[in-house]
Amino acid sequence: MGKQFQLNSKKNKLRFSVTVTLKKDVLDPQGKVVQNTLLNLGMSNLKNIRQGKFFEIEIDEADQIIAEKKVEEMCQKLLVNLIIEDYKINILK
Amino acid sequence: MGKQFQLNSKKNKLRFSVTVTLKKDVLDPQGKVVQNTLLNLGMSNLKNIRQGKFFEIEIDEADQIIAEKKVEEMCQKLLVNLIIEDYKINILK
Repeated sequence: MGKQFQLNSKKNKLRFSVTVTLKKDVLDPQGKVVQNTLLNLGMSNLKNIRQGKFFEIEIDEADQIIAEKKVEEMCQKLLVNLIIEDYKINILK
Repeated sequence: MGKQFQLNSKKNKLRFSVTVTLKKDVLDPQGKVVQNTLLNLGMSNLKNIRQGKFFEIEIDEADQIIAEKKVEEMCQKLLVNLIIEDYKINILK
């Protein structure tokens, strides 16, 4: 019985990745510093680099649609500053 | 002629995304803070969250294999701390 429960709870886990990037028109000073450093290191064909955040989230939920909604809610409530940032949610296998 | 050049240079641009994550056994205090905050916000079925970095890189190079090597070099030289972090390179359309 305990083992059965464990098996079920393992199945119920869904993993998502969330990438948060600055909106196109927002300056990215951190990315600019990285870009300059790379150019100084000799990477002459680097055209542009922008930095963002990445989250790997595990949700205890079997239903993918409900889980995705939860992740969406997390993004809106805490992870993303919607004024200056965009986000993208992907499901991981 | 000028237009032809522009078209070519546009074709020559390749875009990559790089995600940098902490290795599995490395503590992620920043992620833990986010996790606790989300739990306090009532996200009870959040099992785990880990934070990483994300880069969007544009390379001025037509050959995908050469460009990918350049990105790899950038990761190894600057973007990634190979002792505690893993990275993954994807090409973007």
